Amino acid sequence: MIGRLNHVAIAVPDLAAAADQYRNTLGAKVGAPQDEPDHGVTVVFIELPNTKIELLYPLGENSPIKGFLDKNPSGGIHHMCYEVEDILAARDTLKSQGARILGDGEPKIGAHGKPVLFLHPKDFNGCLIELEQV
Amino acid sequence: MIGRLNHVAIAVPDLAAAADQYRNTLGAKVGAPQDEPDHGVTVVFIELPNTKIELLYPLGENSPIKGFLDKNPSGGIHHMCYEVEDILAARDTLKSQGARILGDGEPKIGAHGKPVLFLHPKDFNGCLIELEQV
Repeated sequence: MIGRLNHVAIAVPDLAAAADQYRNTLGAKVGAPQDEPDHGVTVVFIELPNTKIELLYPLGENSPIKGFLDKNPSGGIHHMCYEVEDILAARDTLKSQGARILGDGEPKIGAHGKPVLFLHPKDFNGCLIELEQV
Repeated sequence: MIGRLNHVAIAVPDLAAAADQYRNTLGAKVGAPQDEPDHGVTVVFIELPNTKIELLYPLGENSPIKGFLDKNPSGGIHHMCYEVEDILAARDTLKSQGARILGDGEPKIGAHGKPVLFLHPKDFNGCLIELEQV
């Protein structure tokens, strides 16, 4: 079912410093910050040859990553995203095997403009997994 | 400097259950468990089309991931590994910019038989980063 690793998302306490570090210290290809008000984050994309890293910084009062940064002030890996071909079929397979989908179980349009779901970390080795239909 | 994302490593509390979940629930290509006594882990490799996931489980009394699982009993993302062409050049660049290398700063032979270094998580947004020379 799962295909490529679409991205790894890292919540960071200082977006400019983290982007600068990936660009200048680690020598990666780093994009410009993009506000995603619908998702409560500002994102910087880092293009690696085979996948992406997404630096996440809270945007607005109800950012979904504010609590994560309160608990992890240095930042940390927030989630990883696997690609799927059919997100509804993936969801139904997962639910039939007892895995919990976060929220109301319906795909939302994610930061890349594609349908996404998040799976419950306790059902997946403590990892927050995003599925994105590609 | 950094190239491909070589792998994401997930520490898991039950290796058989996690491997089964990736194979049967998530439908990925999952290998057989491999003991790595020199590294204190048993590893299961998951091959995605563009990168690998490594499931890690403690092996022996002094496993480097035992403390992580004590703190995160459900498991969690333990580290991510970026490829570099020249690990000594990478180390020297990082050190010259103030980043801390774990251990004595000399590359060790990692679980894939290649030279690796680990960078201090507090210098990299709370993420434990492995560099592997490929």
